[in-house]
Amino acid sequence: MSLRAALRTKRCVSGLLSQLPSCSSHVRPRAPAVLVSQQRNNSTSPKIKVDFDQSTGVAIMQMQSPPVNSLSLDFLTELCISVEKLEMDKSCRGLIITSSQPKVFSAGLDIMEMYGKSPERCGEFWKAVQEMWLKIYGSNMVTIAAINGSSPAGGCLMALTCDYRIMADNPRYSIGLNETQLGIVAPFWFKDTMTNTVGHRTTEMALELGLLYSSSEALKIGLVDQLVPEDQVLTTATETMTKWLAIPDHARQLSKSMMRKPTIDKLTSNREVDINNFVSFITKDSIQKSLRMYLEMLKKRRG
Amino acid sequence: MSLRAALRTKRCVSGLLSQLPSCSSHVRPRAPAVLVSQQRNNSTSPKIKVDFDQSTGVAIMQMQSPPVNSLSLDFLTELCISVEKLEMDKSCRGLIITSSQPKVFSAGLDIMEMYGKSPERCGEFWKAVQEMWLKIYGSNMVTIAAINGSSPAGGCLMALTCDYRIMADNPRYSIGLNETQLGIVAPFWFKDTMTNTVGHRTTEMALELGLLYSSSEALKIGLVDQLVPEDQVLTTATETMTKWLAIPDHARQLSKSMMRKPTIDKLTSNREVDINNFVSFITKDSIQKSLRMYLEMLKKRRG
Amino acid sequence: MSLRAALRTKRCVSGLLSQLPSCSSHVRPRAPAVLVSQQRNNSTSPKIKVDFDQSTGVAIMQMQSPPVNSLSLDFLTELCISVEKLEMDKSCRGLIITSSQPKVFSAGLDIMEMYGKSPERCGEFWKAVQEMWLKIYGSNMVTIAAINGSSPAGGCLMALTCDYRIMADNPRYSIGLNETQLGIVAPFWFKDTMTNTVGHRTTEMALELGLLYSSSEALKIGLVDQLVPEDQVLTTATETMTKWLAIPDHARQLSKSMMRKPTIDKLTSNREVDINNFVSFITKDSIQKSLRMYLEMLKKRRG
Repeated sequence: MSLRAALRTKRCVSGLLSQLPSCSSHVRPRAPAVLVSQQRNNSTSPKIKVDFDQSTGVAIMQMQSPPVNSLSLDFLTELCISVEKLEMDKSCRGLIITSSQPKVFSAGLDIMEMYGKSPERCGEFWKAVQEMWLKIYGSNMVTIAAINGSSPAGGCLMALTCDYRIMADNPRYSIGLNETQLGIVAPFWFKDTMTNTVGHRTTEMALELGLLYSSSEALKIGLVDQLVPEDQVLTTATETMTKWLAIPDHARQLSKSMMRKPTIDKLTSNREVDINNFVSFITKDSIQKSLRMYLEMLKKRRG
Repeated sequence: MSLRAALRTKRCVSGLLSQLPSCSSHVRPRAPAVLVSQQRNNSTSPKIKVDFDQSTGVAIMQMQSPPVNSLSLDFLTELCISVEKLEMDKSCRGLIITSSQPKVFSAGLDIMEMYGKSPERCGEFWKAVQEMWLKIYGSNMVTIAAINGSSPAGGCLMALTCDYRIMADNPRYSIGLNETQLGIVAPFWFKDTMTNTVGHRTTEMALELGLLYSSSEALKIGLVDQLVPEDQVLTTATETMTKWLAIPDHARQLSKSMMRKPTIDKLTSNREVDINNFVSFITKDSIQKSLRMYLEMLKKRRG
Repeated sequence: MSLRAALRTKRCVSGLLSQLPSCSSHVRPRAPAVLVSQQRNNSTSPKIKVDFDQSTGVAIMQMQSPPVNSLSLDFLTELCISVEKLEMDKSCRGLIITSSQPKVFSAGLDIMEMYGKSPERCGEFWKAVQEMWLKIYGSNMVTIAAINGSSPAGGCLMALTCDYRIMADNPRYSIGLNETQLGIVAPFWFKDTMTNTVGHRTTEMALELGLLYSSSEALKIGLVDQLVPEDQVLTTATETMTKWLAIPDHARQLSKSMMRKPTIDKLTSNREVDINNFVSFITKDSIQKSLRMYLEMLKKRRG
């Protein structure tokens, strides 16, 4: 199965795919024309759309990889390049990450990158996941996640790497590191990021059970910072960004680094070990078997 | 005074013994006949009763050491052996720990093991306390504490080592690491376990003041996870266990280990030092004197 | 400008000086006569007034450096000597820290100690700030902050070093580590102290944004432990102290040390590096420039 075909029938590490209609249906219509018209002139259709407003210094990054913004190697690579470009542009001080896909922020790691792939390819994929986390968690920009849909597993991780999280107040949307429910395990830096956000005990129970939280539960435990009506997620993010940008950049960046550096250093000095751990785990027969069963279950569900 | 006689007039490191009627009265009646009939055929009456249901993979461990399930060397040894047996039995996936004694889960460390004993004996006792913690905190089984009564000091520690805590909703029952009130000090791994559960600041104040919390206060600070009416503690534990066992064992165990290993490693690599610290502290004249005064106060109270 | 003149037109690292009327007005009247009459016979007017009650073992330390108890080198030196004297007096078991200045507990580090000073002098000043923190955070006494006014930046730090914080229930009073708003950065041990008190995530956002919390917000996030009407702050502190002193000193002190020692050790073994970091940061042209602009803005405001 080619990557392109795989993308069309995208599966995602959500564990609760039934909650994500976009997962079990065919490719959805593209993003509205107005958005498409602003896309960069890439040879292939881009998975990431960036609107940078020079006057405010704020970039809005829309994830637009149908149907559910699964984090494939291609997607992550494109995302990392986009973030890096903005990071190097000193006029860009703030980054808002959101989704152009209905009902989903990001469904997390693309399961097709983990099933039936060579160890080399798995390693390359995992390195890209690390890179995404390192780039956003350590960004000098103010980063705000405008979570306008469900955000399981790697999608949750991406939201957690930001400075602030605004989620649509919709009980149908869920968020959490639910890897355990799929029989796989969140790596230590997913765990560290969540612990830094909601504390040790909440993280322990969340990871042991692979919990997905509704938006209101997520607010209660501090997994997100604010809930707003769905149509106000992006405008609230923009308003919030204005407040954050009123703070002197240098002092804010140093404070952020002081809080996050120990966690970042842990991965930076263990990247190869972490990649090897992932590859040897994911290529195990037992894990591959459960991924196959999961994929077959999805196929049947789609009928 | 023999250990047996000591057990009959059991004292416990509760600091608020007046709240535990069973502490200040004589030996209570045994557990109901139906439970006794299921006891293992030990030569001496067992302090631990285990009911393992092969069909569900769940073991219920009842602590039945009158009057208040004090953690004596004998008790801890029997408990560790029971946990180890279940741990090695791959068909056992879940462990519920509860008490068959009325009004008390466990009153904590047996003060008679710390008063007037030789350093060797004190060291042996402390090693057993460590062993209990290591076995339960690092267990591969799902562990649920069904806290159907008060649970001060070491009793609280035992509850904290489990994955989930359900407590009887009774304002007369209290729980907490109240060692400080007795003039003794919770060791670093008690502190670590509590910090992992309720955070640094709550633990700091709790340990400095030796706080005991009512069940509702305990729920509020996260020392327990759920309150239910007293007669539903065990059934709720059983229902909760079913939910936990729906999670793939392997992924749950790896997630649990990831959260707890650093804390476990700290004790594992410092067991001897920790034992020496305990022994040199507890055998101090000043500490022995305050334990004696405490025991005499208890004797008078019993009239 | 002499230090004395500077004190008369005191500026402080509050970032929200407009909330502190005492900052933008002239020198206020001295503390009431009854207090002054009990002052120690110092050659210069003392900035710290200590009332030690031998019968209770409790000392009340009033900060009385008009207008806003800014932490100058002189002030810190006097404070450290006072704390050390009490620490060495075994009959003194408890210390209540409060302010005799209206509407302010302490406005934090004295900005005049950081502007236009030689590196040597800056280093001396920073060493005194460290010393204050080390002395109170590691004190064997029970320490209670009776926060009867606003307490930004270094004032907040001083409150956080105590065992317990009681704040006046007044929405006009604020507390927080707001250094970032001034373009400067709280050092790692300010950060550690706050993290130990309110957790990682709250600290991260507080430091990135330089947040000041109203008294009720501060209670909500755990930055203070209790709110009482303004005229009851000191009496409540005294009553609370009685409860804390009912705990055996030795066990309480060991528990406190167990909780705080790792954080203290981090600074103790990095004092010189931390001083060098501060000096090289604060003497930067860009930082000095923003301090000058800040001071000029204050001058204009006083008109």
